[in-house]
Order: sequence, then structure tokens, then C-alpha cells
Amino acid sequence: MVFDRVVVAGVGLIGGSFALALKAAGVARHIVGVGRRKETLDEALALGIIDEASVDWASALRGADFLLLAMPVGQMENVMAAAAPHLEPHTIVTDAGSTKSDVVDAIYRYFGSRLANVVPSHPIAGAEKSGPSAARVDLFRHRKVVVTPLEQNAPHAIEAVRAAWAACGAELHQMTPAEHDGVFAAVSHLPHLLAFGLVDDLARRPNAEQLFDYAASGFRDFTRIAGSHPEMWRDICVANRMALLKELDAYVAELARLRELLDAGDGAGLEKIFACAREARTAWGERRG
Amino acid sequence: MVFDRVVVAGVGLIGGSFALALKAAGVARHIVGVGRRKETLDEALALGIIDEASVDWASALRGADFLLLAMPVGQMENVMAAAAPHLEPHTIVTDAGSTKSDVVDAIYRYFGSRLANVVPSHPIAGAEKSGPSAARVDLFRHRKVVVTPLEQNAPHAIEAVRAAWAACGAELHQMTPAEHDGVFAAVSHLPHLLAFGLVDDLARRPNAEQLFDYAASGFRDFTRIAGSHPEMWRDICVANRMALLKELDAYVAELARLRELLDAGDGAGLEKIFACAREARTAWGERRG
Repeated sequence: MVFDRVVVAGVGLIGGSFALALKAAGVARHIVGVGRRKETLDEALALGIIDEASVDWASALRGADFLLLAMPVGQMENVMAAAAPHLEPHTIVTDAGSTKSDVVDAIYRYFGSRLANVVPSHPIAGAEKSGPSAARVDLFRHRKVVVTPLEQNAPHAIEAVRAAWAACGAELHQMTPAEHDGVFAAVSHLPHLLAFGLVDDLARRPNAEQLFDYAASGFRDFTRIAGSHPEMWRDICVANRMALLKELDAYVAELARLRELLDAGDGAGLEKIFACAREARTAWGERRG
Repeated sequence: MVFDRVVVAGVGLIGGSFALALKAAGVARHIVGVGRRKETLDEALALGIIDEASVDWASALRGADFLLLAMPVGQMENVMAAAAPHLEPHTIVTDAGSTKSDVVDAIYRYFGSRLANVVPSHPIAGAEKSGPSAARVDLFRHRKVVVTPLEQNAPHAIEAVRAAWAACGAELHQMTPAEHDGVFAAVSHLPHLLAFGLVDDLARRPNAEQLFDYAASGFRDFTRIAGSHPEMWRDICVANRMALLKELDAYVAELARLRELLDAGDGAGLEKIFACAREARTAWGERRG
């Protein structure tokens, strides 16, 4: 499978790495970058990430075989609204959004006439840096990509999206959008919320400076994700708030159980929970290698 | 300052490293290890960590200038009860417990006649491994040690305890026991409880395996401390439960605020909290180098 014309909307870390990987794998002949900011597009062009830059959807999408939507989830709706009128009947579309139910809602609203060809996906990859200069040809190599097809998707469209990510070296997985959002609310979105919350709580104390002075390596690792991008995580949390609220409630119930044990000085009860956690965490770490 | 006879009760990571460091600094002439398990003492002896092993408090403490209590906090009371009748009037005592209010309580109960000489302390150092073989001469180098003197402490006793830790290369700090426990409840004990709680919550789900399959590097760092020793953390949590309950309640209140914002889809409110956290976390990381 070779795509003659691939359009990448959002040429930062994710979109840029996708473009580099498709080109390196020889599955994209011509790559057009689309974005809001001309400087970002110029940078991607100068870095050889894209072959052509465009701020005009009509010309960018003319004859396009494949479109990747790789902007923050908060911008997804506006981008879909702008792109929809210019989508060719044969263009295969996917996205790289961190949440899927909200993206699917938007797909139904804006791409309703093209549902056969619009296959949502989520590459589980990221890095500390962002922007075109952070893009890497191997960002997706051996990383998971979760494809969450719609009932209406054509088999060849699902296959094309899977093939594009496979060309990037990714490991393909498949789930429903709701299942995806539940899983990532639990193992990604909730931990981010919890880490942001702890650091915010401490930072607002009158003795914040003293507290941070005595924080050590456990605190460092626990709060690393509190250094994540506020705008991006705002968008993810709002987009996935139904699943995230459910996870938050389950976690608060767990904390209530821990509080009872603590209050009662029930060392054996606490140790049981800690031991279960340690066993699961250690086994996971070992599986992961 | 040179100690002719130093007794180290508990010759694992902390006690063993203390012994190695005092010897290397030339401030301890003869080091006696005391412990419950003969094999551990024999191992410490074979590794050259101690000069003499003893399971008998009376002979171990005879003529001792300095005693370090370096066992888990849960064993502190029993050890104090056993050591108290054999303490010489001139012996300087300190401990390496992670909590201080409970240790101070025990000091008043068991070492009531020796309060001038018993100066609590807490070295902020640890490692993944434990036992004598994990001991390192440089474990305390450039690490903080918090000394929490009692009103009744003699100045020369405080000075001796500070000098011993300084000989290990540590950076000396001083607080009240209550202040110590509040600070460490916030920046160490609470994060451990939160990480144990999250992993336990997920591990008990029917789809635990799927959840862990999709956990990535953010989850890895956030939950690293959930791999900590259950017995040790049970003891710390129970020992410091008053301060820890206070911190847990403050954190649950923060989560309630986050829940309200999420439920209302208040992206701006969430972003404000995330941005405050990110700024504080980044500044802390930079100060820390």
C-alpha cells in the first residue's frame, strides 16, 4: 500500500513523526502539512518533515489519499468542521487523539457523510518536547496504537489506517471507543489528575517551600507527570470526563477505605493493600522489562 | 570527636551504611552490631561492616559511647524496652526512624531516665535493596538528615549526633518532631499511600490485565513507589497516622474540587490548577538540578 498524497493536520511531535515515518517506510509519496500557524509549517518544511505546507483545506485535500488529524483534542472539532467540505470521497481519515468517545461524536457530527472512511486511532507515544523539531522517525516504533473502528467503517479503510501505523513500526491494537476511554482514564488520565492535584495542593500552602525542600526521589517520580502540558491535559480531562469521573470516584472510594484503616490503626489491613499493590506493580514492571 | 565503641542496632541498609561511613571517616574505633537474626549479623561481620556481633544487649552496651537504632519503626518499642536497662549514663543515642512523634513517645516511655542523651533523627536516604549487602559507605553523602531534638537534650548530645551524621557526609537539618512528621506526611507518606491505593484499586478489577497492558511511562513513574516494602510502609503509616490523616483529608478535598470542575466541564478551572502544579513542579525540578 502506497499513498500518493498524505495530508497531516498538525505537524508537531505526533504529526511530524508520522510524516517522517511514512516517508522513511516509502508508503507516502507526497506529504502536505496543514496548520494554524505558518511559522510551524515553515519549520516542518525546513526540517524536511513535509513536502508542502498549506493553510488552505480545499487545496490541501484535493486528491488526498490519507488525512491524519494530529492536533490537540480541544481543536479537533474546529479542524473537522473546516476540513469536512473538502474531503474527497476516497480519502481515508484517522486521528491521533488521546480520547476517543469525543472524537467519535465529532466524527458523526462533521464527517457524517464519510463514515465508511473515518477510522479513529490513538498512538500511545509522547515525549517531553513538542513541535516539529521534536518529531522523530522512530517515535512510534514498538509503541502501541489503538484503533477504535466505527460500525460504519469500511474494512479497506480500517486496513489502510492499520497499515499506515504499521509502517511507522507500531504495534496495532483494537478496541471500542468506550473501552479505550475507560482503559486510559484509569491508567493515564487519572494518574495525571492525581499528580497535578497533589502538587497544586502543596504549592498553595504557606510552608510550600519547606515541603518541597524535603521532597525526595519518591516524590520526584510520583509527580513527574504534574510537569505535563496544562492545556493538553485540560482538553483530555474535559473530553474524557465521563470515564474520568467514574475512575476518580472509584479512587476516592479506595482512599476512603485506606482512611478507615489508618484511623483505626489497622496495620494488617493496610499491609494487605500495600502487598497487593506491590505484587501487581512488580509483576507489571517485570512483564514490561 | 571519636567514639571508642559504637553500637548499631539493625545492620541492614541504614545501620550498615552508618557503620561503614563512621569507620571510613575514622570516628568510630569499634562497632558492635546488634540484631534479632544471627544470620544478618554474621553477614554484616563477614562483609566487614561491623567488628563484633551481639544478640545480648547487656554486653553490647557495656562501655558504649553511641547507639544507633536502625530497625523498622514498628520494632522500635521492643528494641528500646530491651536496651533501656543496659544503657550507660554517658551513651549518646539516636535513631533512624522515618517518623518522629511516635519515636519520641517511645523515648519518653523507655528512656525516661536518659532524656539528656537521646536525640531523635531521620536520615532521608534509602535504596531499592535492603539488608547488610545493600549497605554503602556513601549512602548518606549529600543527603539530608533531620535531627529533632527534645527539650531535655543536652547540647553536647545534640552535637554528638549531628557530628556522627556529618561524618557520614550528610547535610544536617533540624525541626521539632511534629514539624518533621507533618512535612514527611505531605511529601513522602501521602504519595506512597496514594500510589499503593491506585495500583491496588486497578489490580482488583476484572479487567486488570488489560488495564496494565496499556499503562505507559507516566503510570510507571507515578506508581514506582507502590513497589515499596509493605511492612515498612505499614509501620510508617500507622506510626504517623495523625499527620497522614490530616494530609489525606486535605488531598481528598483537592480531589473534590477537581471533581466539581470536571463535572462542570470547566476547562479553564482545571487548566489553572494544572498550570499551578506544572509551574511548581518544574521550579522544584530545576532547583533540585
